[in-house]
Amino acid sequence: MSSPAPPCVVLAPDSFKGSLDAPGVCAAMARGLQRVWPGAEIRSCPMADGGEGTLDAVLSRGGERRSRTLTGAGGAPRVAAYGLVATSAGPAAVIEAAEIVGITDADGMAVDVGARSTRGIGELLGALLDDGLRRFMVGLGGSSTNDGGAGMLAALGLVLADARGTEVAPTPAGLAALARVDAGGLDLRLRECTITIMSDVDNPLTGERGATATFGPQKGVRGAEVAAFDATLARYAALLEGALPAGAAGTAAKPGAGAAGGLGFALQLLGGDPRSGAEVVADLIGLDAALAGADWALTGEGRTDAQTLAGKAPYVVARRARAAGVPISLLSGAVDAAALPALTRVYAGCFALPAGPATLAECIGGTGSLAADRAEQIARVWAAARGERSAP
Amino acid sequence: MSSPAPPCVVLAPDSFKGSLDAPGVCAAMARGLQRVWPGAEIRSCPMADGGEGTLDAVLSRGGERRSRTLTGAGGAPRVAAYGLVATSAGPAAVIEAAEIVGITDADGMAVDVGARSTRGIGELLGALLDDGLRRFMVGLGGSSTNDGGAGMLAALGLVLADARGTEVAPTPAGLAALARVDAGGLDLRLRECTITIMSDVDNPLTGERGATATFGPQKGVRGAEVAAFDATLARYAALLEGALPAGAAGTAAKPGAGAAGGLGFALQLLGGDPRSGAEVVADLIGLDAALAGADWALTGEGRTDAQTLAGKAPYVVARRARAAGVPISLLSGAVDAAALPALTRVYAGCFALPAGPATLAECIGGTGSLAADRAEQIARVWAAARGERSAP
Repeated sequence: MSSPAPPCVVLAPDSFKGSLDAPGVCAAMARGLQRVWPGAEIRSCPMADGGEGTLDAVLSRGGERRSRTLTGAGGAPRVAAYGLVATSAGPAAVIEAAEIVGITDADGMAVDVGARSTRGIGELLGALLDDGLRRFMVGLGGSSTNDGGAGMLAALGLVLADARGTEVAPTPAGLAALARVDAGGLDLRLRECTITIMSDVDNPLTGERGATATFGPQKGVRGAEVAAFDATLARYAALLEGALPAGAAGTAAKPGAGAAGGLGFALQLLGGDPRSGAEVVADLIGLDAALAGADWALTGEGRTDAQTLAGKAPYVVARRARAAGVPISLLSGAVDAAALPALTRVYAGCFALPAGPATLAECIGGTGSLAADRAEQIARVWAAARGERSAP
Repeated sequence: MSSPAPPCVVLAPDSFKGSLDAPGVCAAMARGLQRVWPGAEIRSCPMADGGEGTLDAVLSRGGERRSRTLTGAGGAPRVAAYGLVATSAGPAAVIEAAEIVGITDADGMAVDVGARSTRGIGELLGALLDDGLRRFMVGLGGSSTNDGGAGMLAALGLVLADARGTEVAPTPAGLAALARVDAGGLDLRLRECTITIMSDVDNPLTGERGATATFGPQKGVRGAEVAAFDATLARYAALLEGALPAGAAGTAAKPGAGAAGGLGFALQLLGGDPRSGAEVVADLIGLDAALAGADWALTGEGRTDAQTLAGKAPYVVARRARAAGVPISLLSGAVDAAALPALTRVYAGCFALPAGPATLAECIGGTGSLAADRAEQIARVWAAARGERSAP
């Protein structure tokens, strides 16, 4: 009995957070598929959503990884990676905020959130401006800071001062005394720049759905401090919007201003364009080109539920696969049973890692091997349905 | 885009022991498939291996369920079901030992294993002989008795006596005093009978791999009693083989004599032919006919590991599916990861119930719904591979 040619499969999972990065998940899935089809054409397109792992995902498909010593969130120097990639519009720098002020950085987390700042991000932008770059893609998500992006702006020339004109630190604690801002020294080269903000957060800067109320507690803002932090950011934003041209007014209320502790606000003030992180990553890694002509695609993430369909990476991959006419299946660490009916409209089969009763720790510890096994088994169904003989 | 006609799928799972019977698993799998293919032709063939659930599986495809009040393992009367089916060789009775002397019967289990007997099985055989039946298929497995089938033989006319000629009870305790057996009164009609023994146990009656050493403890034989129980069965067997025609010699050593606490020995003495329970069930339910012309098959069981390939129901189904040229996938409660390479040579995809980290209790409690969901997701891969559009 003759069998069809081995298929061309696109692998485009997000990372399985806390367990395995997206390139690692791709590699595991590929191992499983190759057991079924040693000759399969596998196109690995590790995905990300603008948060942690974005740089690895983007650079896995090309570009150059560089690093630079910058000020970490807590003030200590930190060697942080960034990427240089070619885009159709010219060279661009890919910056992952979590690389510089990440919530997984122990040095930064050892310092109280009131004293953390995004200064290192401004330092990197300044250095890249010196290098001649004018195109930036900044991934938010996974930050430990709540400074409204004041640190970044200070590093780029913004002056923040108290009522007596003394400069204050660009941190929540410093900004508590903020009375005046002077934007006159802001790096003028920023006007020539295109800044793409990668995020999947649509919160405004302040208020009930603001950065502090929503994300502050996980960064260490204590319940009793939330109101004060929020008020500080509100005054900071009002002063800043007032000190800039008229177009700046209302920026704090815009969707995404509350991303990364208000770094989203500051980047939007600089003209940054907030986009879905997963969509930008999909563009950067050339996902559409990889899907063109493919027979099948696999995506996944640590845990899939109804929120996934609100625009997370596996949904962006599914939308593009559908547009390309490529059927796509889902293999995640876990799949919420209640979401299956909705997921089923998007995915040709939703699967999870465990092969039987298992604890979360077992799934996390065995992700690579489980993902390979599961991808293999799904592929065996695919092969059988296509009339391929199973192994002898 | 036009889609192929909905497929014809055979569902032939064993029960998920302790959780859902085989007809229930079939129904759940069918629900899942119908969500993908409302027009699919689904051929439900619940399987069993000769143990508990055998009667339900066989009768789900035809035949007549009857019941009769018989002596349970502990001596109390018990209404037990049996089946009458048509076979190519004529009418046959299907008897499930576990229905009469089952380890899940609380009345029987309340009585010490030393006082339990298989008398009820002999009573049923006698009554069916009176009804004119001469063809019996007896499923072993799941019994609570360790009497070497003495109770059954006593009900059919065997006399068991001590050294003074006083009759002893056909139980382990009674047989301890056994000195003589008289087979002269055994029902002569048994000679005209065809007895098929359904079992997947190949243990001999006594010794290290014997009924008592292997299965006694789970029936309540205490560690210190094993040797005495085993010696009692050995003497009983020697006396019995000596009292019967020469062909009986050596029966206790035959594979399967140790099934169901030695009921396998007694049935073999009566001319019973031990066969794989799953093979007999597959024949009775017409599995080969169901597979003929089918596009795909699904089997499964509570837990699949390397032992499954030693001849358990899902393996028998797979062998027959392969012979019929039908690809077959496996959906079990759990699948042993270490066995996957071997299972993969047999099944086009092996899957388990959980959709994420889950406890055994969660899997058992949700078996029906999980099996439906999982079957649906596997079917969606099948459909996509065949070029069917996923749901809108």
